[in-house]
Amino acid sequence: MEHKGFVLWFTGLSGSGKSTISRLFETEMRKRGASIEILDGDEVRENLSKGLGFSKEDRDTNIRRIGYVAKLLARNGAIAVTAAISPYAEVRDQVRRSCGRFVEVYAECSIEELCKRDVKGLYAKALSGEIKNFTGISDPYEAPENAEIVVNSETQSAEESTAIVIEYLEKQGLIKAAQTA
Amino acid sequence: MEHKGFVLWFTGLSGSGKSTISRLFETEMRKRGASIEILDGDEVRENLSKGLGFSKEDRDTNIRRIGYVAKLLARNGAIAVTAAISPYAEVRDQVRRSCGRFVEVYAECSIEELCKRDVKGLYAKALSGEIKNFTGISDPYEAPENAEIVVNSETQSAEESTAIVIEYLEKQGLIKAAQTA
Repeated sequence: MEHKGFVLWFTGLSGSGKSTISRLFETEMRKRGASIEILDGDEVRENLSKGLGFSKEDRDTNIRRIGYVAKLLARNGAIAVTAAISPYAEVRDQVRRSCGRFVEVYAECSIEELCKRDVKGLYAKALSGEIKNFTGISDPYEAPENAEIVVNSETQSAEESTAIVIEYLEKQGLIKAAQTA
Repeated sequence: MEHKGFVLWFTGLSGSGKSTISRLFETEMRKRGASIEILDGDEVRENLSKGLGFSKEDRDTNIRRIGYVAKLLARNGAIAVTAAISPYAEVRDQVRRSCGRFVEVYAECSIEELCKRDVKGLYAKALSGEIKNFTGISDPYEAPENAEIVVNSETQSAEESTAIVIEYLEKQGLIKAAQTA
């Protein structure tokens, strides 16, 4: 069985585990011989959306661009993983419709827990007003209602969440099972 | 032999045959079972660069974005064909350095011939000033000095040009020869 191209679309607040799980998933998929590309929020902003800000319109434009690139990668046989916050449901659903094989992963975590962890100190800055338009604090986040996969970094380790993602994709026939030597 | 991912980068004035040859090349590559994606100038502007204009800076930004997407496609095993004018040599060379396997195709045609054909009526509008910043008329075009392939729509048919491209890529081992049944 060949690996199929598809889009694995993470959504969730800053610090909720999107990038961490993406990287663990990438490592496992590379072991299995898949073509995989992670479109991370910051890197994509630098390469595709320099000059855009954090208004709803600019965020939506950024997400549409990520969606366009993910679509191209997936239809050429790669696994396209996106790990941007992507706070707005409508544009996520637009991208879903344009992409064909599309699996949404909601990286859930309460805002209280994220403020407590605050690994990068961003939540403190958002709460003090030093950072404006911060998703979950001063900017909306619309959680998905029908994500194919939900993971939760309050109750699961990143490794457990990654295993949940992999199990779902195997069951759907989108990735092949690991070779048991 | 597997197809390899690489970037096939067309450059040339509007009407010089970039899109036509790209489409003929795409058809042949699909017959041979390759993954291929054409990043055409207009479509990419719509999807990645809406809001950008035609200043040198904006054109360069647009070309860098096309280059970024082409790089991602190529390193995931696809043939990424770009068919934007890409008038400036420096940014083409930046993209070349970032992409790894990169083949530049100069679609050559004299401005006199392009003005005579003027299929879309754009050259007449550029000459009258109705369209500003038109490459070759009121905006510079820096022809490549070391393109791997040069084709010329004044002396070759689109089919002949496509055959030249394919022959070069076969010799380089970037594409496999057509199956002779």
